[in-house]
Amino acid sequence: CGTVKSTFFFFTSFAVLFLQMGWGDLGAFGEPSKETPNLDQMASEGMLFLDFYTANPLCSPSRAALLTGRLPVRNGFYTTNGHARNAYTPQDIVGGIPDSELLLPELLKKAGYVNKIIGKWHLGHRPQFHPLKHGFDEWFGSPNCHFGPFDNRALPNIPVYRDWEMIGRYYEDFKIDLKTGEANLTQIYLQEALDFINKQQASQQPFFLYWAIDATHAPVYASKYFLGTSQRGLYGDALREIDDSVGKILKHLQKLGISENTFVFFTSDNGAALISAPKQGGSNGRFLCGKQTTFEGGMREPAIAWWPGHIPAGGVSHQLGNVMDLFTTSLSLAGLQPPSDRQIDGIDLLPTILQGKLIDRPIFYYRGNEMMAVRVGLYKAHYWTWSNSWEEYSKGIDFCPGQNVSGVTTHTQEEHTTLPLLFHLGRDPGEKYPLSFASDEYQRAMERVAVVVQQHKATLVPGVPQLNVCDQAVMNWSPPGCEKLGKCLKPPKSDPKKCFWPH
Amino acid sequence: CGTVKSTFFFFTSFAVLFLQMGWGDLGAFGEPSKETPNLDQMASEGMLFLDFYTANPLCSPSRAALLTGRLPVRNGFYTTNGHARNAYTPQDIVGGIPDSELLLPELLKKAGYVNKIIGKWHLGHRPQFHPLKHGFDEWFGSPNCHFGPFDNRALPNIPVYRDWEMIGRYYEDFKIDLKTGEANLTQIYLQEALDFINKQQASQQPFFLYWAIDATHAPVYASKYFLGTSQRGLYGDALREIDDSVGKILKHLQKLGISENTFVFFTSDNGAALISAPKQGGSNGRFLCGKQTTFEGGMREPAIAWWPGHIPAGGVSHQLGNVMDLFTTSLSLAGLQPPSDRQIDGIDLLPTILQGKLIDRPIFYYRGNEMMAVRVGLYKAHYWTWSNSWEEYSKGIDFCPGQNVSGVTTHTQEEHTTLPLLFHLGRDPGEKYPLSFASDEYQRAMERVAVVVQQHKATLVPGVPQLNVCDQAVMNWSPPGCEKLGKCLKPPKSDPKKCFWPH
Repeated sequence: CGTVKSTFFFFTSFAVLFLQMGWGDLGAFGEPSKETPNLDQMASEGMLFLDFYTANPLCSPSRAALLTGRLPVRNGFYTTNGHARNAYTPQDIVGGIPDSELLLPELLKKAGYVNKIIGKWHLGHRPQFHPLKHGFDEWFGSPNCHFGPFDNRALPNIPVYRDWEMIGRYYEDFKIDLKTGEANLTQIYLQEALDFINKQQASQQPFFLYWAIDATHAPVYASKYFLGTSQRGLYGDALREIDDSVGKILKHLQKLGISENTFVFFTSDNGAALISAPKQGGSNGRFLCGKQTTFEGGMREPAIAWWPGHIPAGGVSHQLGNVMDLFTTSLSLAGLQPPSDRQIDGIDLLPTILQGKLIDRPIFYYRGNEMMAVRVGLYKAHYWTWSNSWEEYSKGIDFCPGQNVSGVTTHTQEEHTTLPLLFHLGRDPGEKYPLSFASDEYQRAMERVAVVVQQHKATLVPGVPQLNVCDQAVMNWSPPGCEKLGKCLKPPKSDPKKCFWPH
Repeated sequence: CGTVKSTFFFFTSFAVLFLQMGWGDLGAFGEPSKETPNLDQMASEGMLFLDFYTANPLCSPSRAALLTGRLPVRNGFYTTNGHARNAYTPQDIVGGIPDSELLLPELLKKAGYVNKIIGKWHLGHRPQFHPLKHGFDEWFGSPNCHFGPFDNRALPNIPVYRDWEMIGRYYEDFKIDLKTGEANLTQIYLQEALDFINKQQASQQPFFLYWAIDATHAPVYASKYFLGTSQRGLYGDALREIDDSVGKILKHLQKLGISENTFVFFTSDNGAALISAPKQGGSNGRFLCGKQTTFEGGMREPAIAWWPGHIPAGGVSHQLGNVMDLFTTSLSLAGLQPPSDRQIDGIDLLPTILQGKLIDRPIFYYRGNEMMAVRVGLYKAHYWTWSNSWEEYSKGIDFCPGQNVSGVTTHTQEEHTTLPLLFHLGRDPGEKYPLSFASDEYQRAMERVAVVVQQHKATLVPGVPQLNVCDQAVMNWSPPGCEKLGKCLKPPKSDPKKCFWPH
């Protein structure tokens, strides 16, 4: 429906560059070192989104949301083990992306797309959750975070897959030197992307490239060439390498003459992890707190749409966007309809990107099973506040280092459902000054917000939570392909338990 | 000396746009509303300075430093009434800019320049301190901040001057509606600038325009057309009007065909005043604290050099710069030597601006009579820390709202002279993570810093402090021209006292 879609039908490829970095990490977003010339140029050639969000302040649920177009509370990427707890997919997680969820690559495949994921999958590592069972045609990367090195006894090292089979493990076959921070992985991931683009260009097939690399996730690494080159330390080195890689991918598309047929979107899965700051953590600019929290620092993300010849250069948008919109927008570009048998939270951003339209839609900030906050227009209402527990905080775990807003960055889960804390994000993007409950502005804004929340809650059908059960037996002991490499490990006896989620 | 200077000798005009706004207020520096398209374009056409500083975290001393090229502790714009206290020029100040100081317009005048100040002078309001006695040929604006309205009994309303004589007073003849925030002043100041440029272009004389307007200083105002247009509230309205005005000035220079002969520099006199946030206060981005403090939020400033045909478009510089450099750089452009009979702190930025050279120089952060901190390369060492007193803080005066870095944003004056607190501003621009005293990095960096500080202190000859004595009799009771307007007021009896400076 609509002329825009049919124009590009059957030939627009997509690349989604999905990383972990903070809103403030890009020069274009005010990072004082301004060390991201390629991303800044991408922004100046495309459209910069200033009010773009992830669907969750943690990695796995965000990735599930991007690929399904649905909130984690719907697609199952959440836990009910505790109230408002962040959960993800460590090696002992039993769950993963349910078969009942329809992923973007599954839908694109039917329209003739070839889909490749490069980097971190993070939607479950047991056989039934393998990305090639969920629409991807190719994979180079790992199912989990690159934590380690492990001893292969208590914990196996994370496997690296090429397509169906593992081809080695991190720290063993894919080196990461935690002492120096050196690893060649981003270069390998870059080459994978360029090779894939070459192949697709040669075969004239439209493609979906999901480049989900994780060099800025702790433990942070960079290749030798970039080590020590940033003012910002190791994190900056990693960021500079990613920036350089993004530049090379875009230039490659241009060199091959397919940039006008390739819609590229860059964004992030959650805010910068301030617990890793300053040496391994990024920047959320002036926003409050970071990863793990539902403050702006946890969920507002840098975002750039790039599509030369279609998106006017230098555009800036205040459209409230969400990673889930990439699902719907990509389908729209491919001339496909989103599934009609389920609630899709993503919206089609093409009217915004191509015609500058602003679409009224809320942003929901969830932590696990709880809607912590909602943004409607420039107002953000917190129904619950929590940074982390006193117990964790007293151990030095601080999601808001150097930031403490009384009554806002609380260390107990504070309920405000009867009288939400309300902020005006235009005047107060740092969420420091709650509006007076007695003010006219509060009353007027909350009337509008309350309708949105009431409608959302009344129609919400939560999915079966996938991140409740953990079992050491399900770890990456013997991924497919381990026999050929002599890298199969013996799993311990199965002993499923409720996962413990502290945050 | 040097070919660059002689090339432009006798025909390069200057405009210095000197405002009060925070580093983070510009879209180009990451303000999330991105409402400064003209300043952002100025940056993209010129050179953006990311590490540019003011000489003092308060208005008057910064302005004295810009016009003399000297630290306030040398030019007398400081107080010794207390340790490390910020002082400025309220109406009862007895002091002002000493005759012994050589101001930029005085020097330029000898080279045939016509000099105009539009806006806030702030270097003393008694007759001997009048800007036309210190090198300016024309003035439209006020000697002090636009505080008020006053009752003309305890305090007179601030006069507005045209050249030698006052032409009215704020709130009486130049309206500022504190209730609505409406005032037409920025439009008047803009028109003054355009008229002056027209006149100079017609007479073919080089000019120095010092456009020092103060719409973003509390009480914040904007003209009717801009009121309510910003996402950021009244402060944003004022900023949008300033941004629009800057755009109009630059376009006017281009329209007249003199942009290639006019060096324009935009910067700010101190960081955003966070005590006025969120309604009347700007943003210092992710930097710590704001105006009144020697943390980065108080003294790092947005800065743009613009000179089409000379400065390559889109340049970005990490040169450590200072408002005092505008003194030296302007002299250099005019083919003049800086005075050799006194210490000049400003450096000539032309090699940086035109040839991309990086000049090694420290930044000193003074509060009154005390060197609180110094920056050498990417390291910043705090010899003293203080935000404000417990007494003030307990009354709700907070220079670091929502920010509290233990042991750093102290509420007592903490001395660290034997073991300075050291930060790496590349990894940690927010000054949250002091380096470990025991680290090799600390030892190495402090060796370098100590030499710089030792040399600075050993050669420092403080000027006679000008901001020590206050007297109600010296207020703007009867400025020149008041007779013609019937606006002379009777001064009280002289009663000089030590001024009280709480911060």
